[in-house]
Amino acid sequence: MNQSQNEIREPDFARGSDGLLPAIAQDAQTHQVLMLAWMNREAFQETFRTGQATYYSRSRGKLWRKGEESGHRQKVLEIRIDCDADTILLLVEQQGAACHEGYASCFFRTCTADGLVVNQTRLVDPESLYPRSQST
Amino acid sequence: MNQSQNEIREPDFARGSDGLLPAIAQDAQTHQVLMLAWMNREAFQETFRTGQATYYSRSRGKLWRKGEESGHRQKVLEIRIDCDADTILLLVEQQGAACHEGYASCFFRTCTADGLVVNQTRLVDPESLYPRSQST
Repeated sequence: MNQSQNEIREPDFARGSDGLLPAIAQDAQTHQVLMLAWMNREAFQETFRTGQATYYSRSRGKLWRKGEESGHRQKVLEIRIDCDADTILLLVEQQGAACHEGYASCFFRTCTADGLVVNQTRLVDPESLYPRSQST
Repeated sequence: MNQSQNEIREPDFARGSDGLLPAIAQDAQTHQVLMLAWMNREAFQETFRTGQATYYSRSRGKLWRKGEESGHRQKVLEIRIDCDADTILLLVEQQGAACHEGYASCFFRTCTADGLVVNQTRLVDPESLYPRSQST
């Protein structure tokens, strides 16, 4: 009867490099795969608790509350984990563009024999997303 | 005029830990996210060349031609890369179940406040997938 208490209730962060696991964000309505980022346990727990996607920024070395600068937040409707409990899938309601390049999805380029081909229309000018940051 | 020759034509494997990048497989028809695995340059090039998903198995330390044991292959219809060129998205035509547990997708469990909840119906008995392997 206590079996559910012994189940893994969260991802197995010990399986990740430096305690980080990949987290995929998918648009719950369009089903478009938006991006992949990384989560540590703290990011996962904050996401679970707040319902807003929070990742761990490897480059900045700290929690990254998606959209805190751009306003392009992700409301998390569902969190799934895979069979090995080492990958996270978020079903989200995306505000604005998920990609800092201004595209709906970060996966806006297709690999072809002739090189990379853009497969989406840009939604917003990336310069308008981060007005305080320098483009150099 | 030679700009396209200077573009990244493949993912930036130098950005991956041990030269490995995460690769997401998404069903091209249902848009279900099926699984996440890893690719090195060799796996990527074989996938691009053959049109069949080939990953790198971290546990086995060698190329993993998806479905070579189970028959549940993935025909790759399109390969996309993200803005940082460090994540790969495959749009695939999945034969059978993507997950070795017999589910269509590896993300068959949802994290809830009451624990993990299975969100899919099993397609096939996992015992039937790998009849020669032991279940212990």
